Amino acid sequence: MIKSIDHIAIAVTNLDDALKTFTSLLGSRENEVRVEEVPTEGVRVAFLPVGGTKIELLEPMNEESPIAKYLEKNGDGIHHIAFNTDSVAEEQERVKGTGIRTLGEVRHGAGGKDILFLHPKDTGRVLVELCSKKTPETAAD
Amino acid sequence: MIKSIDHIAIAVTNLDDALKTFTSLLGSRENEVRVEEVPTEGVRVAFLPVGGTKIELLEPMNEESPIAKYLEKNGDGIHHIAFNTDSVAEEQERVKGTGIRTLGEVRHGAGGKDILFLHPKDTGRVLVELCSKKTPETAAD
Repeated sequence: MIKSIDHIAIAVTNLDDALKTFTSLLGSRENEVRVEEVPTEGVRVAFLPVGGTKIELLEPMNEESPIAKYLEKNGDGIHHIAFNTDSVAEEQERVKGTGIRTLGEVRHGAGGKDILFLHPKDTGRVLVELCSKKTPETAAD
Repeated sequence: MIKSIDHIAIAVTNLDDALKTFTSLLGSRENEVRVEEVPTEGVRVAFLPVGGTKIELLEPMNEESPIAKYLEKNGDGIHHIAFNTDSVAEEQERVKGTGIRTLGEVRHGAGGKDILFLHPKDTGRVLVELCSKKTPETAAD
């Protein structure tokens, strides 16, 4: 079951510039902002909390990063929406039952979560991520 | 002060098709979905609640609608993020103070709210809407 919006991800060419823009816009305090690198996804990520959800800024770490390719084609902008679920593995079965295809399999993302992307052709041309806290099975790998 | 994400808006060519897609994805119940027309913005709008925020689907009502122009250029996809504030009028002053320009002035939007769009050139190429419940001053016009 989809419970809430975990984050809205924005692809950015320069994370430091984007942090200035979005902390000004949102009035974020410095100690609220969390930055981490996710080498498996090829991105440096900043999370800015807003109410019960987050803005996620994604800067590519190298040219092979999917975000580098996205930026080359589209420039900076909203990249995807991520929804919280109790279990990505269970939710994967439910959405497949509705005819929505996935992009690859469940894997680890930022914030130590399990993540799964859905095929934008089946979700109105919007890139959708499902995420949940790491489950025991995926935590073991 | 920006308090939370009010909604994420998605431009759609066909609202009925998009409603099928997104209610399937989100597992929304039919009685949770609200559809309204906002002639001043030239759009038919559906709201799908997700946790404490909403997905807003925007279908143009005519060719002059800004959403029709957006779809012609970009196709279906995420159009803007809207943030809740206590008062759009007060927030307008705060963001102007940070150097962020606005697109026009405060006006009435869907859900009987006061809304104001910010200039995407000043918000990392992301179209941002600020919204708040109608204030007595704007409610009078």
